[in-house]
Amino acid sequence: MAWDGKPAGIVTLLSDFGTTDTYVGQMKGAILRRAANVVVVDLTHAVRPQAVEQGAFLLESALPAFPEGAVHLAVVDPGVGSSRKPLAIRYPGGWLVGPDNGLLSAALPETARPVSAPGPCPLLGPLSAVAIEPAALGAGNLSATFHGRDLFAPAAAHLAAGGALGDLGTPVATMIGLPPFRAERLAGGRLRGRVVHIDHFGNLLTSIRAADLSGPNVAFHHARHHVQGLRVTYADAPPDELIALVGSGGLVEFAVRDGNAAERTDIRLGDEVTAEPLRPA
Amino acid sequence: MAWDGKPAGIVTLLSDFGTTDTYVGQMKGAILRRAANVVVVDLTHAVRPQAVEQGAFLLESALPAFPEGAVHLAVVDPGVGSSRKPLAIRYPGGWLVGPDNGLLSAALPETARPVSAPGPCPLLGPLSAVAIEPAALGAGNLSATFHGRDLFAPAAAHLAAGGALGDLGTPVATMIGLPPFRAERLAGGRLRGRVVHIDHFGNLLTSIRAADLSGPNVAFHHARHHVQGLRVTYADAPPDELIALVGSGGLVEFAVRDGNAAERTDIRLGDEVTAEPLRPA
Amino acid sequence: MAWDGKPAGIVTLLSDFGTTDTYVGQMKGAILRRAANVVVVDLTHAVRPQAVEQGAFLLESALPAFPEGAVHLAVVDPGVGSSRKPLAIRYPGGWLVGPDNGLLSAALPETARPVSAPGPCPLLGPLSAVAIEPAALGAGNLSATFHGRDLFAPAAAHLAAGGALGDLGTPVATMIGLPPFRAERLAGGRLRGRVVHIDHFGNLLTSIRAADLSGPNVAFHHARHHVQGLRVTYADAPPDELIALVGSGGLVEFAVRDGNAAERTDIRLGDEVTAEPLRPA
Repeated sequence: MAWDGKPAGIVTLLSDFGTTDTYVGQMKGAILRRAANVVVVDLTHAVRPQAVEQGAFLLESALPAFPEGAVHLAVVDPGVGSSRKPLAIRYPGGWLVGPDNGLLSAALPETARPVSAPGPCPLLGPLSAVAIEPAALGAGNLSATFHGRDLFAPAAAHLAAGGALGDLGTPVATMIGLPPFRAERLAGGRLRGRVVHIDHFGNLLTSIRAADLSGPNVAFHHARHHVQGLRVTYADAPPDELIALVGSGGLVEFAVRDGNAAERTDIRLGDEVTAEPLRPA
Repeated sequence: MAWDGKPAGIVTLLSDFGTTDTYVGQMKGAILRRAANVVVVDLTHAVRPQAVEQGAFLLESALPAFPEGAVHLAVVDPGVGSSRKPLAIRYPGGWLVGPDNGLLSAALPETARPVSAPGPCPLLGPLSAVAIEPAALGAGNLSATFHGRDLFAPAAAHLAAGGALGDLGTPVATMIGLPPFRAERLAGGRLRGRVVHIDHFGNLLTSIRAADLSGPNVAFHHARHHVQGLRVTYADAPPDELIALVGSGGLVEFAVRDGNAAERTDIRLGDEVTAEPLRPA
Repeated sequence: MAWDGKPAGIVTLLSDFGTTDTYVGQMKGAILRRAANVVVVDLTHAVRPQAVEQGAFLLESALPAFPEGAVHLAVVDPGVGSSRKPLAIRYPGGWLVGPDNGLLSAALPETARPVSAPGPCPLLGPLSAVAIEPAALGAGNLSATFHGRDLFAPAAAHLAAGGALGDLGTPVATMIGLPPFRAERLAGGRLRGRVVHIDHFGNLLTSIRAADLSGPNVAFHHARHHVQGLRVTYADAPPDELIALVGSGGLVEFAVRDGNAAERTDIRLGDEVTAEPLRPA
């Protein structure tokens, strides 16, 4: 069933602000000021400082869990106060709000995203977006360093409370997109991806999608590690053995049962990983 | 006044997921998808990875603060995807949802819990529980690694929104329980417990309950530390002295005024501690 | 437009409790027990243990972002259980609840705060405050160590739900205030302040307010670092250069573009910083 365009009354937050200051609290205050009844949900505020790509990955991973019509506000914004545009986007699952630096790539269909480096992508129907204008929000006291509170939070609250996208600023025709987090297809059914995230448990998530594998009869190769086959669960594995399995987001990940794969191996963020189909024995 | 069986509209969350990924956010999304009006409260997500006993202790410590009719969802789940049962339990204070591995022991009366090692415990009235069935939740796309999002969150939302326990699966007659966090009674009014938790302030919480002491005229013995008497508050103590007092959960804890007892001593998690009644001087 | 005295239905929380225990969760439970419909917002729980001044600074920084009529509950309380008074205060923006140790100084107008050391300050109209009495809250089981849960949370819930301040205890005429976080004026238009906070990004916030500068043509001096002029945004600076700019709270801060100024310099919390007006070139 397609989304009917109504707001779900939810604003999610993702940032690199950490939780040791009151920056996240101030964003929530700014949201509640404009929309007293919205529910605010933290995705995470532990994106590494200025790490736009990590933020984009984490945001993309979380969206499917939310009801349609949620507003997703994300701020990882090395260019705050510069000429990068502040965006509010309507996409088929709801709205995204944040800086135009690739962080909001999840709004774009993969076919519209660039192949190898971040770059401008056309916003075609059903996508639409505006560059948020401070004046449209009555944001007279806009700080030059905290658009999360002064610009993005009021814009998100406006949308979550049922306000129109067009009220927030002027339409834009393109936005910056990152290449999809997806392994490259090579000859012979092989896939070449990389380690795109290390989670709290030390699991090493790769850009190889289970859906892209030709089947479970597969081997995974890292420069110094080789894993054969896919386990179904962590509990299937013997302790201390490096295994591969399909994580909750549909990506192949390396893990160690009851252990921390990132600590037990020398596999690092960004390392290349290939998948190779095996002949049936 | 006994609980009337109505939901309080609250779901609490406790896990070992950390807050650097979006796992907790995804669970909240899954709850709000099914029950838009429930209030979700984080207890903590900093349980050590796979530390079921620590999770059980922290969960038990938090329950008394909540209104009756809250749903408490806890996930510390080394056996996710294995044959361990996913449980939803009704107990006299509300509901508990999570894996059947001892984490939910707080649902059981202490007399029903095992003496020395985790094991199956009978669920007698007024307790009732079901093994959650994915089909009952329409959870077709159940991941093998993230039951927190795909199974437990929808089940908790169902209960918090007023759904019946019986809708979630088939009744079970036993659940895994951990021994109570309670010191053993020895001859002469002595108690033998252990350090069961170290909190954020470095206070060392023991399994010795104030209610089990014969009075305040008591000495506490650790292999290398001895403390006489109970202080009422941290502020009662001279700086730098190791003291004992009754913490907010009714347990004897070791503390250092304005300091961190865990850092200032060599007392460790699991260390044995005894309480010895003293003759009136 | 002046605040009409109505509660906003919001309780904010700030503490040194951390998030690895369930203490914050227990406070939320205690609030929801008394006021099921209030929205609870975390400001931060990462105040350094017992650091009243840091807590006061962070609380003050967050208040302007919230709607009028919010209740701000703060607990950094080395003297819990001692004779320090538990306070509930009505100020022109809403209410503040917490221990009487200077943490709640934001309630006071700056002119009423002491110049150099913490001390008692008169509560003059429109300010009013009471010393919270456990009996007024029906808090029979008051713990000696966790007033956050047993005393302050119920009091905050009472106010957020529309209860009267006078119900909570007996009026007090003074409260402890800290000196304002504001640089001292010296001869020749110079200002002498200090580093009052280091944020998650490593930005070094000073007590020098932009509003107190005679203009942007200014130099900042630290014992071992000198910075000329104010940048508008982080993005204005060349990488690796220590710059000064006006942060989101109106304070001058030192920063390094895309870097961590606290790690890249030897500037420390508490260090003296001066601002010196420069002649137009």
